[in-house]
Amino acid sequence: MYMLNFRAVLLLPATLLLAAPALHAEEGMWTFDNPPLKQLAEKYNFHPTQAWLDHLRLSSVRLNDGGSGSFVSPDGLLLTNHHVARGQLQKNSTAEHDYLRTGFYATTQAEEMKSPDLEVNVLVGMQNVTERVQGAAKRIADEAKALKAREAEIAAIEKESKDKTGLRSDVVSLYHGGEYWLYQYKAYTDVRLVFAPEEQAAFFGGDPDNFTYPRYDLDMALFRVYENGKPLHTANYLKWNAKGAQPGELIFISGNPGATSREDTIAQLVTERDVVEPAIIEYLQRRIAAAQQFAAQGPEQARLVGTTIFGLQNSLKVYQGRVEALADKAIIAKKQAAEDDFRKKVAANPAWQKEYGGAWDTIAHVEEQIRPEIKTQLFRRTDSQLFTVALQIVQYVAEIKRPDGDRLPGFHDAQLESLRFRMLSPARIYPATEKLYMTTALTLAQEKLGTQDAYVQAIVQGGDVGRTVDTLVDGTKLSDPAVRKELIDGGEAAVAASTDPMIEAARRVDPIVRETSRHLRDTISSVLTPASEKLAKARFLVYGKDVYPDATFTLRLSYGTVKGYPYNGTIAPPFTTFYGLFDRSASFSNKPPFDLTPKEAAALGKLDLSTPLDFVSTGDIIGGNSGSPVVNRTGELVGLIFDGNIESLAGDFVYDGQRNRAVAVHSAAMLEGLRKIYNADKLADELEGKQ
Amino acid sequence: MYMLNFRAVLLLPATLLLAAPALHAEEGMWTFDNPPLKQLAEKYNFHPTQAWLDHLRLSSVRLNDGGSGSFVSPDGLLLTNHHVARGQLQKNSTAEHDYLRTGFYATTQAEEMKSPDLEVNVLVGMQNVTERVQGAAKRIADEAKALKAREAEIAAIEKESKDKTGLRSDVVSLYHGGEYWLYQYKAYTDVRLVFAPEEQAAFFGGDPDNFTYPRYDLDMALFRVYENGKPLHTANYLKWNAKGAQPGELIFISGNPGATSREDTIAQLVTERDVVEPAIIEYLQRRIAAAQQFAAQGPEQARLVGTTIFGLQNSLKVYQGRVEALADKAIIAKKQAAEDDFRKKVAANPAWQKEYGGAWDTIAHVEEQIRPEIKTQLFRRTDSQLFTVALQIVQYVAEIKRPDGDRLPGFHDAQLESLRFRMLSPARIYPATEKLYMTTALTLAQEKLGTQDAYVQAIVQGGDVGRTVDTLVDGTKLSDPAVRKELIDGGEAAVAASTDPMIEAARRVDPIVRETSRHLRDTISSVLTPASEKLAKARFLVYGKDVYPDATFTLRLSYGTVKGYPYNGTIAPPFTTFYGLFDRSASFSNKPPFDLTPKEAAALGKLDLSTPLDFVSTGDIIGGNSGSPVVNRTGELVGLIFDGNIESLAGDFVYDGQRNRAVAVHSAAMLEGLRKIYNADKLADELEGKQ
Repeated sequence: MYMLNFRAVLLLPATLLLAAPALHAEEGMWTFDNPPLKQLAEKYNFHPTQAWLDHLRLSSVRLNDGGSGSFVSPDGLLLTNHHVARGQLQKNSTAEHDYLRTGFYATTQAEEMKSPDLEVNVLVGMQNVTERVQGAAKRIADEAKALKAREAEIAAIEKESKDKTGLRSDVVSLYHGGEYWLYQYKAYTDVRLVFAPEEQAAFFGGDPDNFTYPRYDLDMALFRVYENGKPLHTANYLKWNAKGAQPGELIFISGNPGATSREDTIAQLVTERDVVEPAIIEYLQRRIAAAQQFAAQGPEQARLVGTTIFGLQNSLKVYQGRVEALADKAIIAKKQAAEDDFRKKVAANPAWQKEYGGAWDTIAHVEEQIRPEIKTQLFRRTDSQLFTVALQIVQYVAEIKRPDGDRLPGFHDAQLESLRFRMLSPARIYPATEKLYMTTALTLAQEKLGTQDAYVQAIVQGGDVGRTVDTLVDGTKLSDPAVRKELIDGGEAAVAASTDPMIEAARRVDPIVRETSRHLRDTISSVLTPASEKLAKARFLVYGKDVYPDATFTLRLSYGTVKGYPYNGTIAPPFTTFYGLFDRSASFSNKPPFDLTPKEAAALGKLDLSTPLDFVSTGDIIGGNSGSPVVNRTGELVGLIFDGNIESLAGDFVYDGQRNRAVAVHSAAMLEGLRKIYNADKLADELEGKQ
Repeated sequence: MYMLNFRAVLLLPATLLLAAPALHAEEGMWTFDNPPLKQLAEKYNFHPTQAWLDHLRLSSVRLNDGGSGSFVSPDGLLLTNHHVARGQLQKNSTAEHDYLRTGFYATTQAEEMKSPDLEVNVLVGMQNVTERVQGAAKRIADEAKALKAREAEIAAIEKESKDKTGLRSDVVSLYHGGEYWLYQYKAYTDVRLVFAPEEQAAFFGGDPDNFTYPRYDLDMALFRVYENGKPLHTANYLKWNAKGAQPGELIFISGNPGATSREDTIAQLVTERDVVEPAIIEYLQRRIAAAQQFAAQGPEQARLVGTTIFGLQNSLKVYQGRVEALADKAIIAKKQAAEDDFRKKVAANPAWQKEYGGAWDTIAHVEEQIRPEIKTQLFRRTDSQLFTVALQIVQYVAEIKRPDGDRLPGFHDAQLESLRFRMLSPARIYPATEKLYMTTALTLAQEKLGTQDAYVQAIVQGGDVGRTVDTLVDGTKLSDPAVRKELIDGGEAAVAASTDPMIEAARRVDPIVRETSRHLRDTISSVLTPASEKLAKARFLVYGKDVYPDATFTLRLSYGTVKGYPYNGTIAPPFTTFYGLFDRSASFSNKPPFDLTPKEAAALGKLDLSTPLDFVSTGDIIGGNSGSPVVNRTGELVGLIFDGNIESLAGDFVYDGQRNRAVAVHSAAMLEGLRKIYNADKLADELEGKQ
């Protein structure tokens, strides 16, 4: 599943990302200010108007759980993937009502089910603020001070915008410092579930089929966005095309790819390959094993950790794909050739060479410094929701008293509204899984970093992980959002006086985390940021501006063609059908993870089995694009991105138009499923505009 | 398709083959005198009786067109693949009646259609004649003379047996000279077609899907064997199991694998990789291009070359798989490690080292000699049926006058009956395709060997291929089998006096071919044969006799389990269903080669789509196994081998039980197809014993 890349949420030094010099056909995750008009005109004779682009952008939605979506009705219906919705589904489920297993359908608006902590964003404004951000540090020689000045300026821009417009305001670094943009978002936090199929229908084939194609998944969910307690009325929604994507058709994908490393320097790829990825894979395997052991205890235990196992297995498959890609000599040779070409072209111009030529070595030097520290950054973790919120509270009450520009990342004024929304989430936290995750994380931390590590010592009392975890989880009151609110409202005094064991642990950890953050900024980021900015500027000079920036979990436009590709010694088809769902299920004797749901089995006589189910296109996507709408030339919705094929896992580093494919649910399949499997004609009618 | 390996029919020096030292589970193509009883007992607790083995052997049939089959009714019904039968189907087709396109079904015995030149063999006797063959050369120091003495002894053994029993009698070299066996066959030449589906149903997915899985092919055909003008009545037939192969089930495959190179020395693999395979691939590509150009001229032209293109594309895919396998560093490392182990173990015993230790270097030396000559051996060819039979006639009349032991290979007394059957085939030969194939072959020969090459000069008059081919094909009368018979019966005088231009060309080529044959025997085979025999003996000493010999297109027993395998980032199922046929067809918008036949499309309402269609097992097979029966523990027919997966193409060199799979048609699918698609209930009843 094309979920937000796991790495993007790890506490790791940011990786330097640069845009690509020589583009392959249909490559690219383009910003809406710089769409690939030239390529579309030349290859497809297609000339989107500004209105076409604006409508698509304003119909696109970022789900801050880590995915994408789109408005698909004038009454705020929001289409995304089941696997993007599953976090909220899990939070709304109980032992009695397991909506992941049974699915959900609100036949009336009254039944629509509120998501506890889902914020969604629509990108309504974009302003280039590069000069202001870069100018703030221009005359400051000291690197650490320069970085600080730049961060203060970013915070100021965000705050000004937020104060003036009330919009969520994020300054985004694109082309790794080549440009800075202020992105203004309309944020919605009243997001209610309307429909989700059974997990098994959405995720047919399970972990084995994940990141592969041919596929037979109905990986869809529908929310409705509310504003002031009423369904959002909007003209910015995508018309549903009931015929759906056609083989050979030009399509567009509008969504939020999370992170790519296409322009990593070779030095950075070596860090990824040799240090980061082996460590993450080991970490993921350990967590999966522990969670599976827990799940084996019974159905309720299995339910509690289902979404966690899903996410971890998904990440593991991504990382295994990345490891294979970086072990592929052809890929490394390609990356090396690109870097050699870039360096040669910079060196050929004495002025460029003087200004930018040293950046590669600077980065290589920083990478050498980083490598031994990565293990510490990665394994200092608790994987506990309660501890995370405890630390947020401890830092929040301190940070908000400091000048905005001086605060830790994430605590700037413009960010506080979203942060408080998350900190005060009413979603239930289960002590059993808190203990499981925390025990696994701290045991691994002890093993990897030693019992003498400062972070480990600050949490684990007397070296006994089991007793520590029991004390913390059993003793804390932070499961109750009202307790969190009290502490937040009580400020520094209340937090300092708290005897909640989780807050006490967070207080002990806080200085260690701050010191790490300071160390990374002063010795790593302060050097990397200007070096990467130099490479970005050099790249614009050498290769021009007809390029796209690496992914940053902000809105991007991709384009491509619906078509198959060489696979397994033969060719994969452009789309699959419901016939294939029944074939693959019968081929495995209907055993999990290839079992049909009772509703699917019962629909056999009704379904038109030749209806396209899933399809592939050459559009360039990555984790975070899950739930992205696929639209045709007229801007109508023809599909719903939910995955990439196994070959696309190398897409983090390099795009291969021959074999890299985005996998989507076909718009015809969604209607067929709603009407024939789920008897949701009313909802299908709303999508088709037939009410 | 697992057709007889193309290389096996090329005029190339025989490759040295040795049996495997360390067997993987379910590896092996075992002779019926040495079945894998130990493995079956240990892994499956299965203990086949001698009667079980004899019944399976006597129910198994070799089709000398290059495939395998089995008796499946007491009235001589012979089950094989459509693609094994397709040569005879093509020969019986005309522009008006294209049985390849339309299929064929004889509703009465009177309609059963005689095959023009199909001989089938049943292995009724096996005798170990190693001592006699090896003894014949024991005291002869001169290598060339020793080889000749051995060949004379083999001819004598065959003639004695043939004279005594009337059976086809072949001495077979197993373990590359480690053992010699006299195989006695009951031969049948009255073989009539009863049923064949449309080519498109048998070969759904065409060249792209060939050698892949999942598959959806009904690759079956039924002949009936006649004796003395009446259906053969036999107790040696396989009972049809209507439920068919089950996932996880132990199965057996009895058939005639054509050739493997599992025990090639590294020196021999290098010859294959660097010289043989690139040349063959170029040759195949050239022939395919020429034939496709011809086919584009019209439907009748397409019909005429359809089977040729099929066979060439099949071979090309095999050779591309072999090239990939030999380019795979892991495979080469595995082969090198095996050879190193073998050499080390021989060297550890001074007596063995003295007797056998030099064989590897001897072979490596011979390989160096062979390499520059391979191009000549490969490209000296006409690909003309008429020229081939002309040369056979020229050689036949001369050879039969010589002492049996002195003759060219293929002309020994015991072989003459089969040879005459082929030479006098009434199958129609088309001048247009003769010209096409001959022009392609001779043009390529000129290009690769130069116009001064003796063989090229002997055929191509005045350097003009086009005119030469027109003169030969337009001028010859050899299309008429009566003319061939007249020349054969007229003997050397008639052949010498003939002014038929094809016979004249053959007379010019004959001395060149004889000289090549002599050269290869005296300088290559005379050294290779004893060296390979030494390695074979050493292998028995080092690894014992619990091994199987490389394939030799003689009857073998393989065993395995019905099960899927890791593929495409996920897992392939143990079987497919008719649902999958309709899925893959619809997924490609029913376009060739993924189109349903009208009969298949019409059967949609009648077919039980969940019926297993094709399935995979771990059984170890290779080209020539096409048409092999798959039987269960009780010896009942549960499937019909027709292909291997793409991963199995490395099986020529190494068996990988994790991913190597044999692909078969499921016995339930054959019944379902006969009854519901072809309305052939009568035939299905005969198979089920329901008459």
